[in-house]
Amino acid sequence: MKVGVVYYPEHWNRELWEKDADLMVETGVKVVRLAEFAWSRLEPVEGQYEFAWLDEAVEIFAKRDIEVILGTPTNCPPLWLYEKYPDAIQCDEHGNRVSIGVRGHRCYNSPSLIKKTIQIVTEMAKHYKDNKAVVSWQIDNELEAYHCTCPVCTDKFREWLKKKYTTLEKLNHTYGNVMWSGEYSSWSQITPPLGERQSWLNPAYLQDHYRYASESMVEFVKLQADIIRKYCNDVTITTNMYLGNMTPDFYKTFKELSYASYDNYPVVVIPKDHEEIYSHAFHLDLTRGIKRQNFCIMEQLSGALGCWMPIGRTPRPNMIKGYSLQAFARGADLVLNFRWRSATKGAEMFWHGILDHNNKLGRRYEEFRSLCHTVHEELQMLEGTTIRNKVALLFSHEQDNAFKFQQQSEGFHYYNQLKLFHDGVMRLGVGIDIINITEDLAQYEVVIAPTVYIASPEIVDNLTKYVQNGGKLILTNRSGVKDESNACIMDYLPGPFSSSVGAVVEEYDALGNDTNRICMENGKTYRCNQWADILQLETAQSLGTYMEDFYEGKSAITKNRYGAGEVYYVGTVLERDFYKDFMSDVIEGTSVETVKNLPDGVEVSVRENDTQKYRLLFNNTNDVQEVRMEDCETIVLQPFEFYVVR
Amino acid sequence: MKVGVVYYPEHWNRELWEKDADLMVETGVKVVRLAEFAWSRLEPVEGQYEFAWLDEAVEIFAKRDIEVILGTPTNCPPLWLYEKYPDAIQCDEHGNRVSIGVRGHRCYNSPSLIKKTIQIVTEMAKHYKDNKAVVSWQIDNELEAYHCTCPVCTDKFREWLKKKYTTLEKLNHTYGNVMWSGEYSSWSQITPPLGERQSWLNPAYLQDHYRYASESMVEFVKLQADIIRKYCNDVTITTNMYLGNMTPDFYKTFKELSYASYDNYPVVVIPKDHEEIYSHAFHLDLTRGIKRQNFCIMEQLSGALGCWMPIGRTPRPNMIKGYSLQAFARGADLVLNFRWRSATKGAEMFWHGILDHNNKLGRRYEEFRSLCHTVHEELQMLEGTTIRNKVALLFSHEQDNAFKFQQQSEGFHYYNQLKLFHDGVMRLGVGIDIINITEDLAQYEVVIAPTVYIASPEIVDNLTKYVQNGGKLILTNRSGVKDESNACIMDYLPGPFSSSVGAVVEEYDALGNDTNRICMENGKTYRCNQWADILQLETAQSLGTYMEDFYEGKSAITKNRYGAGEVYYVGTVLERDFYKDFMSDVIEGTSVETVKNLPDGVEVSVRENDTQKYRLLFNNTNDVQEVRMEDCETIVLQPFEFYVVR
Amino acid sequence: MKVGVVYYPEHWNRELWEKDADLMVETGVKVVRLAEFAWSRLEPVEGQYEFAWLDEAVEIFAKRDIEVILGTPTNCPPLWLYEKYPDAIQCDEHGNRVSIGVRGHRCYNSPSLIKKTIQIVTEMAKHYKDNKAVVSWQIDNELEAYHCTCPVCTDKFREWLKKKYTTLEKLNHTYGNVMWSGEYSSWSQITPPLGERQSWLNPAYLQDHYRYASESMVEFVKLQADIIRKYCNDVTITTNMYLGNMTPDFYKTFKELSYASYDNYPVVVIPKDHEEIYSHAFHLDLTRGIKRQNFCIMEQLSGALGCWMPIGRTPRPNMIKGYSLQAFARGADLVLNFRWRSATKGAEMFWHGILDHNNKLGRRYEEFRSLCHTVHEELQMLEGTTIRNKVALLFSHEQDNAFKFQQQSEGFHYYNQLKLFHDGVMRLGVGIDIINITEDLAQYEVVIAPTVYIASPEIVDNLTKYVQNGGKLILTNRSGVKDESNACIMDYLPGPFSSSVGAVVEEYDALGNDTNRICMENGKTYRCNQWADILQLETAQSLGTYMEDFYEGKSAITKNRYGAGEVYYVGTVLERDFYKDFMSDVIEGTSVETVKNLPDGVEVSVRENDTQKYRLLFNNTNDVQEVRMEDCETIVLQPFEFYVVR
Repeated sequence: MKVGVVYYPEHWNRELWEKDADLMVETGVKVVRLAEFAWSRLEPVEGQYEFAWLDEAVEIFAKRDIEVILGTPTNCPPLWLYEKYPDAIQCDEHGNRVSIGVRGHRCYNSPSLIKKTIQIVTEMAKHYKDNKAVVSWQIDNELEAYHCTCPVCTDKFREWLKKKYTTLEKLNHTYGNVMWSGEYSSWSQITPPLGERQSWLNPAYLQDHYRYASESMVEFVKLQADIIRKYCNDVTITTNMYLGNMTPDFYKTFKELSYASYDNYPVVVIPKDHEEIYSHAFHLDLTRGIKRQNFCIMEQLSGALGCWMPIGRTPRPNMIKGYSLQAFARGADLVLNFRWRSATKGAEMFWHGILDHNNKLGRRYEEFRSLCHTVHEELQMLEGTTIRNKVALLFSHEQDNAFKFQQQSEGFHYYNQLKLFHDGVMRLGVGIDIINITEDLAQYEVVIAPTVYIASPEIVDNLTKYVQNGGKLILTNRSGVKDESNACIMDYLPGPFSSSVGAVVEEYDALGNDTNRICMENGKTYRCNQWADILQLETAQSLGTYMEDFYEGKSAITKNRYGAGEVYYVGTVLERDFYKDFMSDVIEGTSVETVKNLPDGVEVSVRENDTQKYRLLFNNTNDVQEVRMEDCETIVLQPFEFYVVR
Repeated sequence: MKVGVVYYPEHWNRELWEKDADLMVETGVKVVRLAEFAWSRLEPVEGQYEFAWLDEAVEIFAKRDIEVILGTPTNCPPLWLYEKYPDAIQCDEHGNRVSIGVRGHRCYNSPSLIKKTIQIVTEMAKHYKDNKAVVSWQIDNELEAYHCTCPVCTDKFREWLKKKYTTLEKLNHTYGNVMWSGEYSSWSQITPPLGERQSWLNPAYLQDHYRYASESMVEFVKLQADIIRKYCNDVTITTNMYLGNMTPDFYKTFKELSYASYDNYPVVVIPKDHEEIYSHAFHLDLTRGIKRQNFCIMEQLSGALGCWMPIGRTPRPNMIKGYSLQAFARGADLVLNFRWRSATKGAEMFWHGILDHNNKLGRRYEEFRSLCHTVHEELQMLEGTTIRNKVALLFSHEQDNAFKFQQQSEGFHYYNQLKLFHDGVMRLGVGIDIINITEDLAQYEVVIAPTVYIASPEIVDNLTKYVQNGGKLILTNRSGVKDESNACIMDYLPGPFSSSVGAVVEEYDALGNDTNRICMENGKTYRCNQWADILQLETAQSLGTYMEDFYEGKSAITKNRYGAGEVYYVGTVLERDFYKDFMSDVIEGTSVETVKNLPDGVEVSVRENDTQKYRLLFNNTNDVQEVRMEDCETIVLQPFEFYVVR
Repeated sequence: MKVGVVYYPEHWNRELWEKDADLMVETGVKVVRLAEFAWSRLEPVEGQYEFAWLDEAVEIFAKRDIEVILGTPTNCPPLWLYEKYPDAIQCDEHGNRVSIGVRGHRCYNSPSLIKKTIQIVTEMAKHYKDNKAVVSWQIDNELEAYHCTCPVCTDKFREWLKKKYTTLEKLNHTYGNVMWSGEYSSWSQITPPLGERQSWLNPAYLQDHYRYASESMVEFVKLQADIIRKYCNDVTITTNMYLGNMTPDFYKTFKELSYASYDNYPVVVIPKDHEEIYSHAFHLDLTRGIKRQNFCIMEQLSGALGCWMPIGRTPRPNMIKGYSLQAFARGADLVLNFRWRSATKGAEMFWHGILDHNNKLGRRYEEFRSLCHTVHEELQMLEGTTIRNKVALLFSHEQDNAFKFQQQSEGFHYYNQLKLFHDGVMRLGVGIDIINITEDLAQYEVVIAPTVYIASPEIVDNLTKYVQNGGKLILTNRSGVKDESNACIMDYLPGPFSSSVGAVVEEYDALGNDTNRICMENGKTYRCNQWADILQLETAQSLGTYMEDFYEGKSAITKNRYGAGEVYYVGTVLERDFYKDFMSDVIEGTSVETVKNLPDGVEVSVRENDTQKYRLLFNNTNDVQEVRMEDCETIVLQPFEFYVVR
C-alpha cells in the first residue's frame, strides 16, 4: 500500500525538480505519475522524439526510490499533428470538426491518429523498457466513448452494423425502422447519431451506437497496451477512469489491463439533505468490482476544485487524509494525489493541488504528509489483504446506456437506483461488491439487481440460475422491459423475470417527482416516488402496498420462493431509510453479519488475508461520531477520521 | 358518432393483424386510421409502388365493417428520397440542411419533394379510388409552417414579396427598413429570417414571413387534396392539426378540406393552482369553430405520454373515456384513440396506447371498451346534432403570430388572453364558439375580441359593424396597436377602436408579473397583472379602477354605448374569477341562459337538432361534483364522468 | 449645461420634421443627435453620397438654434456593402460569418470595411466641416471589442502576438502552453478563441486576445477621429459607451476623443432587497473618471424598455426628470434623452421615447419639459463647475477581463466588488471618483483598490508609492494573484502587496453563496460570503475575525502602517452595511467631510468652481425622505427629487 502524487516536470522550471523530489521524499511520497499530457515535448517535431528531459526527471525520482508511472500522451496530440492531419480531429453532432485548443479532441479511429499513436507509444515503450524505475503505465487519460461523426467513424459504424446484422432487412426489422419511414434502403444512409434531437432517435440504434463507440475505444486501449507489453516486461498497465456521460464499458476496457484505476473527487461540502447519498464508497466499490481485485486511485482530491467552473470550497480538515484512507479501506493499494502543486499557468490552475501556487507548506500539505506516514508506517499490515463480501450489487452498462436516451420518469437516474441499495447495505455495516451483471454470483448470499431493463438471455439466465441454486435476489421496477435489441418485450412485466418474481405488473404509473406512500407488513410507512408498479400477485406474497391514488392497497413490494432461493421485487423507488430497513430484513437469516447501531455516515469495511481480518472504520460526516461495536470498546471518530479495529 | 383507433399494421407481425381486428370488433371500434407514415413501405424503391400489404390490411378491416381513413405519407419521405434529392430536406436558421433521421424534415417547396408527393399521392388515390372501405383521407401529419431557409424557399419568399409590394421602395417604406440601415437595395438581399436573434428582427418582415410560410403550407395541402379529389369520389379529406409554435393558418388550411381534425391530448394531472386553466374544452371549441361545423379528433389521449421527455403520469380512472366524451360533447362526431397498442420499437414506444406493450387487456382498455359501448349504444340520439351558441370568442392568426416575436410583457401569452374569457363564459354554463375574427358575427349576442393588436380595416369594420347593429362587444388592452403591416398606428390607443370604446389610453404600464388591484363599481376587487392601460374616458363609463401605483383611481375597465350596441373595454389582465363575474354581468339582459351554481370544473354543452336539445355535462375535476340544475334533480358526477340531460 | 434629444429624421415623414423641431423649441430642447445609423440613406448606392436630406434636417434645427451632434453611421453598413464585400461581416466562434439583418455586424479589421469607412467619414466630414450647427461628432454606436474570428482578424491577432513575443518559445513559455500539449510549433496554429468551451481555454491567451481586440477597436475609433479632425475645426468628438460583456478599454477609447459619453438606463423598479445596489451613480462616477472631467449622457432613459425582451415597467413619476438631474449632479454637462418619439416601425419600436407612438403630449413629456426648464432656467449657475473628490475607487480593465473567463467563486462579479465600496462611501454623503488604476493618486486621501488580481509592476508601484507618501489604501481578497501575463505568482498572497499589507494569506476558502460571519473589534458582526482569505499577520493588526468554520478566530480584515501611510485589507466580501461602517472608520481622521444621518438612497454630490460650491441632493428611492443637514434646515425630498443646497 502506497501513497504518491501526480507530477508534471514539464510545467516547472528545471531548478524546481530536485527540490520538489527532495520534499516528496521528506513527505513520504513513494510513487509519481509523469508524462500524461506531454506529447508536444516528447515529439516536438514530427518524427523527432525527445526523451532526455523525461529521462532526467525519471532519474531524479529513481535516485530517491520513488517509483514512476508513465502516461501515454495520446489524449493530447500536439498542434502540429492536428494541423498536418486534420482527420485526427473528432467531428461533432453536425459533422463538423470540433474546435481544438482544449484537450481530448482526437478521433480514436482516425488512421493518422492511430499511426501517430503507434509511433509515439512504440518509441516510449522501447525507450523505457529497461528502466527499472518505471513500474507501470497509464494509457491516455479519462477515456470517453466519444460520439465522433467523421467519415472514418461513419464507415466504421456501418461496417460494425453490417457485421452484426448482415442484411439491411434484419437491421430494419430489429430497429423497427418502418416507424416514420426510417428504413434504410442502402448502407450509405446510416450515420452516427446527428443533430440535437437525439432523444427523438431510435433507441435500438442508439444502443448499438453506444456499443460500437465503446468497442472503438477499447480497441484503442488495446492497441496501446499491446505495444507496451511487447517491449516492456514486468510492467503493469492501466488507464484512469472517470464516470461521465460517455463512459465506455469499463469491464471491457480493463479486461486486458493489469488493474483498474479511478480518478476520485469526493464531495467537499457534505449535503444537508438526508436523501442525498454522497459517500464515494459507492464509486470505490464499483472500481474494485471492475476486475474484482484491489485497485489504484490515480487522481485523489487534494484541494479546492475550479477552472471551467467557479472555484469551490476548500476541503475541510481531515478530508485530504480521510478520503484517501477511505479509498484504501475499500480496496485501493495505491493512491496518487492530484496534484503535487497547483499549476501556475494554463486553464487548470484552479484545480488545486497539495501545495498551493505559493509553494508553501500549508494545512493540506500537512494532512497529506500525515497520510503518507499513516499508510507507510501504520497500515502496512493491510498489505496483501483483500475484501471478501457476501452481498453483491449488479451494475450493467447496457442498462446505464439505455436509460441515457430514454429517461423513465422525471428524476430517474440509473446510478441513483444503485446507490440507494448500496447505501442501505452500507448503513448496516455490511460489505458489498459492485460487479458486472454477467459475473458468476455463486459466492454471494444476497444479490441486488436494480432495474434490469434490458433483459438479455445471458442476464436472465445468470440471475435465474443464481436463485434456483438458493440465492436471494432483489429485483426492482423497470426490469424485463426490453430485449437485447432494446425493443419492448410483448409480455407482462417484469417479462422473463415474471415467474421467478411470482407476480406481474398489472399497470404502472410514472410518478416522477410526485409521491405516493408505502405501508409495509409491519406497519412502517415510507414515501415513494419516480415509479409505481401496480402488482398482481401469483405465487408471491406482498410485503408492502400503496397507500394513495387509485391503486391504494395494491401491492408494490413482494417476496417469492423460487427454486432453492428467494426473489424480492421492489416496484417503486422509496425514501432512503427504506433501503436500510429492507436490506436488514433480507439479510436476516443469512450468514452476513451486520453492525448494530452504526451511526449514519460511519462506514465499515473489512480487509483480510488468510490469517487476519481488519475492520476499518471511516467517519464520512462533519460530526464527531461514537461507534459502540459489540466486540470492543466505544470508538470516538473525528470528522473524516479513519480507524482500524483488529 | 363513432369511436375508432389509430393502427399501424406495418409495425406489427402479420399474424397479429387479424387478431387485432377481431379484438377491435369485439371492443366496438368502428374506424381505423392507416398508412400515415408508411412511405418507405408504399414506395420502397423509387417508382416501385407496393400496395399489396395495405390492401390486405384494409381488407381485413373492411371484412369486419371497420371503416378506414388513409393517411398520405408525406410527413416522412423514405431515406432513399432524401439521399437522392437532398434539396427535399429543410434548411435551418443558419441555412444548413437539417439532420434527418427523425420526422418532418421535408421542405414543402422543394421541387423534388413536390414531384415525389404528386406521384405517391396520385398512385394511392388511383389505387384506392374504388375501395369502399376507405371513407376518408388524412393529408400528411401535424403540419407546421416550418421556416425553411433553403434556396428554393428563399426565392419563393422573394417572389411572394415582389408580388405584394412590387417595388423595393414600397417594401422598405412599409417595413421601416431605414432603421439600422436595413434597406434592401436589391431583391437578392432578402432572405428568410436567419440567425438566432430573431427577436431583434423587423416585426413587419417577420409577420410577412409567417404569412408566406403559412400560405406555402396551405398550397402543399391543396396540392394533395386536389389529387385525391380528382380520383376519389365520395371521400372526405382532412389533415390532423396540433397547436405548436409554427401552426399555420388553420382557417385557410381547412378551407378546402372536408372537416377539421385535431390531435387531442388533455392534461393527465389536474393542476392545483386555481389560476391555471387546463380544460381542453377551449381547444375543442376552437376546432369546431374552424369550419363552424362538427369535427374529428384524429388522435385522442390513451395512456401515459413519454419519449422525447420522461414518461409522465398514467391517465387517472375515467379519463380515457371521459375526455373522449368531452370531445363529443363539444362537437366531435368521430374520435380516434391514439393508438391501438403501444409501439414496441422505435422512438415513440413510450407514447402509450390503449393496449400496453404487453398486449394484455388492462384498465385503460376496459375504459375504452366502455367508451365504445356508450357512444355506439347510448348516445346515438346525438347523431346529426350540432352546437348553436350565442356567444363568440374571436381568434386571429394575425394576432397570434405578431405576439410570437414581440412579447408584450413578462408572462403575456395570446392564448391565455383568450382562455381567460372562454373559461369565464364556461363557468356560467354558457356555450361559446371560437371563430375567426373575420367571420360574420350576426348570429351572436355577445362577442369577445381580446387583444386585437393588428387592427386591419377588415377586422375593424367587422367588429364596428357588429356593434352598430346592436351587438355587445368586449375589447381589451393591446388592441388597435398596429396596422396590417405590423407598424404602430400613430394615434391614441385603442386606435381605430377609440370611438366605439369611448375612451383612450392615456398611458400604459407593462406590469408583467408585478400586480395591481382593480376595484369594480360594486366594490368587488380583483388582482391584475401583465398590463395596465390607464384610461381617459370620453363617452364611456368606468366599471373598474386601479387601486395602486401612481394611476390609482384611474379607470381600467369601461362600458360604452355605440350605435345600437355596447362596447366593453378591459384594459388589464385579471385573476380568473373576474372573468366569470364580468361575463355574467355582460350576459345579463341578453337571451343567453346561464346555469346557476355550476360547480367549478363541471362543463355544460348543448347539442341539438331541429327537434331536440341535449344538455351534456362533464366533470373535468378530480372530485365528485353535485350539479343542482333548476329544471331537474341533483346530478352526482364522478371525476371525469359525463352525463346527458334531455 | 444642456438638455437634448436623439432624433432620427429619416424615420419620419418629411412633414413631421418642422413640427417636431417646433415642439422641441417650445419644450426647451437645445441639442439633437442625428444620423447615427443612416448609412443606407447617406450612401444609398456605392460611391453616391446624398446629404441633401440631412442638410435639410440640420438646417431645420439650426434655424431654431438647436445644436447638432452628428453620428458616423459605421455601426450599420448598408446591405449592398455586405453583399458586395462579404469580408466586412464578422465571423462567430466557429469561424462562420454571422447572420446579418440586425446591427453591428461589421468587422473593424476588414479591409473593405475600413476602406468604405474612410470614404463615408471623409465625405461627411468634408460636407459638414463648415456647418456651424454641427458642434460635435459621435463615432459609431456602443462599440464592442467583438471577438471576430475572420481570416483577417486571425492574421492580425498573430501579428499582434508576434510583435509582443517575438518567438513562439517565449509565447509558449509565458502562456504555459505545455499543459495539454498546447504548444504552438508554428504561428499558423494560432487563432482567436474558437468553440463554446472558452472557460477551458488558457487564461493568458484569453487575456491577450481581449487586449488585442480592444486595441483593434480603439484603432477603428482613432481612424475616424483623425479624419473628422483633419477636416473639421472647432468640433468635439466622442463615442457613446455602454457597459456590456465586450466593452473595450474605455480609457484608451476616449484618450484621443474630446469627452466621454455614456448611454444611461437606470432601473425603473427599485429593488426591495437591501443588498442590491441599484443606483446609477456608480456608472456616472465611472464615466466622469474616464477623462477625469465632465461628460455627456448620449442616451438617457425616457420610457419603458422592451423589444428583444418583453416590455418592462414604465418609469415612475419623477424618474424621467430626476435621473437626468442625477447625471448632471455627478458631472454631466449635457444629457440627451433617447429618443424624441418612440419608433412606429422596426425592431426597436418598444424602446419607448419621450413621446409615445401616438405623438401626444403625455406624462413623460411633461416631466421632460420640466427638466428642460429646470436645467436651462434654474441650474445655470452650475455651468463651469466640476467635481473634486478626495476619495478614489480604482477600476481596471485588466481585472475586469481576467475575471470574465476565470470566475473566482459562485456569485463573484468584479463590478459588484467595486459597487460595494462605492455604495459605502456614497452612504456617508462623501463624493468619490472612479478612475483608472494607473492614474496618479496624489490628490486623494483615501484610495480603494478592490481585487487587484493582476498585479503588474506598474500597478504595484503606483499603489505602493501612494501609500508610502502617506495615502490610505484599501486592498481586498484576490489581489496580487497574477502577474501581468495572467499567470499565478508563486508566493504568499497578496503577492507583491504582502509587505504593505503586513499580512499574508495562509489559505483561502471560496465561499461562493455559502456564508460565514465576521466579528469586528468593536463587537459588531457582519455576514460574509464569496471568499474567505485566512490571514496570518506579520506587522498588521487585526480588525475583524471569522466566527465560523475551521478558521474561526482567524483574521479576515487588517490594518497596517506602511511608509507614511496605511493599508487596510478586506479578505472577504461582506454585507452591504459593513462597507458604510468600515469606510466611516477609514475616513475618520482625514479631511474628508461626511454627512451625518443621511437617509439611505439619498445621494449627495458637490459641483464647484473656484468661488462657489453647490451641494446637490437626489432622492433615489420610492419614498419621501427627510434630510437634516448640519448647516441648514430639514429638506423634504419626494421620490426621485433633486435639490440644490448652496
